[in-house]
Amino acid sequence: FTSKLPHTETTIFTTMSALAKDYQALNLSQGFPNYPSAQRLIDLVSAAMNNGYNQYAPMAGNLDLRLAIAHKYEVLYKQHYHPEKEITVTAGATQAIFTVISAFIKSGDEVVVFKPAYDCYEPAVKVQGGTVVPVQLTAPNYKVNWETVASKISDKTKMIIINTPHNPSGTIWSESDMIQLQKLTANTDIIVLSDEVYEHIVFDDAQHQSVCLFQDLKQRSFITASFGKTFHNTGWKVGYCCAPDYLMAEFRKVHQYNVFSVHHPTQKGIADYMQDENTYLSLPTFFQRKRDLFLNLISESRFQFQPAQGTYFQVLDYSAITDQNDVEFAKHLTKVFKIASIPLSVFNLNQQDDQVLRFCFAKTDDTLLKAAEILKSI
Amino acid sequence: FTSKLPHTETTIFTTMSALAKDYQALNLSQGFPNYPSAQRLIDLVSAAMNNGYNQYAPMAGNLDLRLAIAHKYEVLYKQHYHPEKEITVTAGATQAIFTVISAFIKSGDEVVVFKPAYDCYEPAVKVQGGTVVPVQLTAPNYKVNWETVASKISDKTKMIIINTPHNPSGTIWSESDMIQLQKLTANTDIIVLSDEVYEHIVFDDAQHQSVCLFQDLKQRSFITASFGKTFHNTGWKVGYCCAPDYLMAEFRKVHQYNVFSVHHPTQKGIADYMQDENTYLSLPTFFQRKRDLFLNLISESRFQFQPAQGTYFQVLDYSAITDQNDVEFAKHLTKVFKIASIPLSVFNLNQQDDQVLRFCFAKTDDTLLKAAEILKSI
Ligand SMILES: CSCCC(=O)C(=O)O
Ligand SMILES: CSCCC(=O)C(=O)O
Repeated sequence: FTSKLPHTETTIFTTMSALAKDYQALNLSQGFPNYPSAQRLIDLVSAAMNNGYNQYAPMAGNLDLRLAIAHKYEVLYKQHYHPEKEITVTAGATQAIFTVISAFIKSGDEVVVFKPAYDCYEPAVKVQGGTVVPVQLTAPNYKVNWETVASKISDKTKMIIINTPHNPSGTIWSESDMIQLQKLTANTDIIVLSDEVYEHIVFDDAQHQSVCLFQDLKQRSFITASFGKTFHNTGWKVGYCCAPDYLMAEFRKVHQYNVFSVHHPTQKGIADYMQDENTYLSLPTFFQRKRDLFLNLISESRFQFQPAQGTYFQVLDYSAITDQNDVEFAKHLTKVFKIASIPLSVFNLNQQDDQVLRFCFAKTDDTLLKAAEILKSI
Repeated sequence: FTSKLPHTETTIFTTMSALAKDYQALNLSQGFPNYPSAQRLIDLVSAAMNNGYNQYAPMAGNLDLRLAIAHKYEVLYKQHYHPEKEITVTAGATQAIFTVISAFIKSGDEVVVFKPAYDCYEPAVKVQGGTVVPVQLTAPNYKVNWETVASKISDKTKMIIINTPHNPSGTIWSESDMIQLQKLTANTDIIVLSDEVYEHIVFDDAQHQSVCLFQDLKQRSFITASFGKTFHNTGWKVGYCCAPDYLMAEFRKVHQYNVFSVHHPTQKGIADYMQDENTYLSLPTFFQRKRDLFLNLISESRFQFQPAQGTYFQVLDYSAITDQNDVEFAKHLTKVFKIASIPLSVFNLNQQDDQVLRFCFAKTDDTLLKAAEILKSI
């Protein structure tokens, strides 16, 4: 019984969270908050169940939620996505990403992926028989050389996957990056898959560079996003996908046979919650305070860093401490110092090891204080 | 931007439910209950949210739920599935089915499918570049000719998809069918995908023939199932998949990059609810009463039928009423008589039309009474 991913193992997130549990370590590895989400949001989901939102949602998603998403794009980006035809609610951003790739990638197609890359892109391409063409970026700035990218494009290039704010590096792309991407893809059939799950988490007054802000890019792009990241409930697994209607029509053909529809009461609860725009407009400030707290606390440690520009992850360089490779060092810190993180090499081409670890700061202040105490002691 | 399902349209369920809404017709088309699910189950899901089950569930599912599922297999079938290694919770049975097919089917592989077939199997095979080899069964008994099936097996046959109790026909397979299937697949590499979402809905004291009851079959089979069907909340989209560990390991490689994990508080709520075995043991009686009520009420109509043996669907033969094809007649009934059903030809090879329509009787007694009044007037 051979499968299509013979060499795939459990994700690094599952591995490190399990190790954290075994060693009773502080878990700053897998990206999820350890503080409760808004009680009001929970109450709205309960209310939706009690009000009978328990049968199939429409395949494309609860309409109130699609209207709320469309409104958010007007508010944040002054861009229009048609709620009926251009927005689909998904079982988390991961399912949206897997579905975009399933809908378009066939055997022989090439997909450009920037490394380090979040771990779900490459296996999804492989399942469809496609080939990942990697473009490696390097710590600490992870800057894109657009000439290198251009050299990777061929007749076989069917898709480019981008991700800003970027997990795992915590960097963001500039307007100029987006303009370069737009130039490169102009007059091609290349589809852009833009993973924007951290769109609400950008710091120091930076503007999130959504593909929807660039008209030619918007016409060829899928945006995937996640309410789990946005509203602090990663376990609810509700996200969405936006794209121009002719792309969305193709997406839905696969979506309807992959999950068909998504947890209905949660969709309705989130829709009601989003009536107050402040629920998402307040997020950059909320996370900037956490980032600043964490970085102030560890400024006197032996770890070196450039402050995260976005996401709820901070990358720390430990080269001043040891020569150990990052996987070994991450395990060592979990077992001995009782703090779990994510080694970046697992996301790199050929496991390139830049001696950096990723720490999630979507944690209570108390956890961040404890984590900083540990990091200073290393 | 060509996709892999160029000719696929919206599912018949979406189409008929939308038509029912437009014409304010009784909706007996798409399979979902119109009565509320147990308040206790809703309360347990709310409690799980309030108790903090809001971050990622383990990739394979909340362990309490996997234990409850394993226990159910002991109670119903005296069969063992290891909760850690052989059970995975999914975003509904559809996602489980799509994931099994994604994990194993490659370009050139053949998959045997019995027609009429639920609509999600064939597109999932096509997305992976596989070919569906159909075996057409025929109204009113939908009996399998196992010699015909044997003639469809070749070196390219990678999978056989079965579904008992069967949607849309409402028939069930006998022990002898299962033994034939077991003989046919013995000493081959063929994987069996057994869609058992209606396992709890069998009538007249029949025994559900799960693949897990046949040891050689069990070793090559995935079972997919749905709590939406079982606990009357089709909109919650939580299901699961069971298989021997070496198959489940391959399933999870794809599952973890398709949805990663599933709505956590719902998993916990269902796990708590299932502590009382009666929640599922009482289901055959519950649905038999509905079936009997519906069939008694329409016994004097011009529709002809064999009573459903399982599922919550009843197929009605309208050949005594009109020569119209079933799609046209289903639309006519919706628009003029204000009752929506599902035409079976859409699930058949070459749209074979047996002049039968499927009606869902998972409805309040009041709805069934109204439906019967209409059907008698036709
Ligand atoms: C799906 S587990 C991974 C969560 C996450 O997004 C991360 O830690 O990067
Ligand atoms: C996913 S909508 C279809 C519901 C169903 O199982 C049916 O009506 O057969």
